[in-house]
Amino acid sequence: MRTYSIAIVGAAGLVGRQTLERLEERRFPVGKLKLLATSRSAGAKIQAFGQEIEVEETSPEAFDGVDLAFFAASTQASKELAPQAVRRGAVVIDKSNAFRMDPAVPLLVPEVNPQAARRHQGILASPNCSTIQMVMVLKPLHEAFRAKRVIVSTYQAVSGTGREAMEELKEQTAQVLNGEAIKPEVYPYQIAFNVLPHIDAFDEVGYTGEEMKMVNETRKILEDDTMRISATTVRVPVHIGHSEAITIDFEREVTPEAARGLLSQTPGVVVLDDPRSLRYPMPVEAAGRDDVYVGRIRRDLSSDNGLNLWVVADNLRKGAATNAVQMAELLIREGLLLRK
Amino acid sequence: MRTYSIAIVGAAGLVGRQTLERLEERRFPVGKLKLLATSRSAGAKIQAFGQEIEVEETSPEAFDGVDLAFFAASTQASKELAPQAVRRGAVVIDKSNAFRMDPAVPLLVPEVNPQAARRHQGILASPNCSTIQMVMVLKPLHEAFRAKRVIVSTYQAVSGTGREAMEELKEQTAQVLNGEAIKPEVYPYQIAFNVLPHIDAFDEVGYTGEEMKMVNETRKILEDDTMRISATTVRVPVHIGHSEAITIDFEREVTPEAARGLLSQTPGVVVLDDPRSLRYPMPVEAAGRDDVYVGRIRRDLSSDNGLNLWVVADNLRKGAATNAVQMAELLIREGLLLRK
Repeated sequence: MRTYSIAIVGAAGLVGRQTLERLEERRFPVGKLKLLATSRSAGAKIQAFGQEIEVEETSPEAFDGVDLAFFAASTQASKELAPQAVRRGAVVIDKSNAFRMDPAVPLLVPEVNPQAARRHQGILASPNCSTIQMVMVLKPLHEAFRAKRVIVSTYQAVSGTGREAMEELKEQTAQVLNGEAIKPEVYPYQIAFNVLPHIDAFDEVGYTGEEMKMVNETRKILEDDTMRISATTVRVPVHIGHSEAITIDFEREVTPEAARGLLSQTPGVVVLDDPRSLRYPMPVEAAGRDDVYVGRIRRDLSSDNGLNLWVVADNLRKGAATNAVQMAELLIREGLLLRK
Repeated sequence: MRTYSIAIVGAAGLVGRQTLERLEERRFPVGKLKLLATSRSAGAKIQAFGQEIEVEETSPEAFDGVDLAFFAASTQASKELAPQAVRRGAVVIDKSNAFRMDPAVPLLVPEVNPQAARRHQGILASPNCSTIQMVMVLKPLHEAFRAKRVIVSTYQAVSGTGREAMEELKEQTAQVLNGEAIKPEVYPYQIAFNVLPHIDAFDEVGYTGEEMKMVNETRKILEDDTMRISATTVRVPVHIGHSEAITIDFEREVTPEAARGLLSQTPGVVVLDDPRSLRYPMPVEAAGRDDVYVGRIRRDLSSDNGLNLWVVADNLRKGAATNAVQMAELLIREGLLLRK
């Protein structure tokens, strides 16, 4: 079987490690494997594919001979190094915010807009976690009923921020339970037993970067600039799993039953919607799974033709690593990976 | 000074104790004070107003000579005993769901619809916690700009469920941190490090009781049955303080600046809205305070004339005990308390 020379940039980070695990789990045809990171993590040894691999410091030369590079590092690192990797012949799947809104870069959720992959010029971007799980559900509904307006409030896990945030939540929680003083470091305020209506930086009209990602990325992925979208993104004291309360206004007539039927046939989406038996999606159940869970599907009471939905997914898997590996699988399937 | 003979039903519970504390804190003119509860709590001794008061078992006779009875017990207890208390000459301020939608019963937030108190026939109802903090902000905006449509997603603290839920969150959190097995009792699933899109029972179309309270109570309080409202109510692992992400469509032209100006002059509402300095409302800051905090006031991007807001309040104070004591203060001020 044809194998591919793979590099993972940010291999020591939370999403880098998840990417490695997903490659193994999904039996991705990995040939040579390079684990790259900043000098701080270089020299560390990581077990993968039955070997112990030493983490190397990222450099432009490191991409020589690499077919496919996953970037799971900072936006700054992607901006600097992804073009270098492409110049040396690699295809880049970037999980940062660096290129998502670049018109030359496909922004890809393989189940949603696979056709966009064909336009790639070396770099493909994976959307923000909160966008991915929303478009997975929005796409089939939009195709069938034409979504005009989307209002979303999120309940986002700390793992979206990284490993330090997961540690901070644990430590701070123990401190609060023990009545000890806390000292927030990753977040500006206490995250244990609190919620923060603040993810990413604020712009001049009061929206956060995370909120605007949900607006702009969704439009780009669905190729519909007329769709009106508004988001409130909120950090909650949950380790893994983002939840979203979504209200959608449709042009065409819609019913909860029709939506349920459609979504239950959507690959990658699992309908978990039997409230009378107390079945609805929750982060503790979605964590560790690749699917996007949707429930609480009901008529929106504030419009004539709308739905309310509750969507939950593992932000490290479908929200990040799984989506990136699925992008790579699509590239292979479509003969879009090797550029030489 | 004229004092009033007061009874508190459910005095041993979380909201009962809070009511007692608010009466003391606000120097309410309490004369005789009866603390009532079920037989389970009868005999317990509670410190209040410099005395030690023994909790008595609630009975119809217990209301003899009582001017004002606060009901902070179950809906069932209110249904059974509130009419008895009224028959014996007491005015009842009920915090349960028993009479809220009864057309003969005023549903009161003193800053919002004080005029409704005049119609009382012995029983007045205090709205649900999540409704109170929303209408505190919605009322002035509705008066100025005419709200047509309201979409709200909540982030509700466990203290809304009661003392056992607060204990469950603490114990379960410690168990999860220690890697021990958990056994949910108050909630159907793990609440530590999780979110539950489920508060109160589900109806046949998939809404919860809590969601329908927000819809129906808001319309009753604002005396506007044309306002369209939709809610998703969610329990989060927070001890005290409910948060709400609210989207409002208006008939008249609105700006964030105008809304901010109006709300900053609204008694009981505090505008905390300077995101560039990271100032926004949070449950850990709202807990222990009587005001309703509003921030993240910004144009809704999904409509031509809407706003998004983030509203936080202490669900045990303004959401329950404080509102009830303010209702009593209003009754005295307006000469509506004594019925004999």
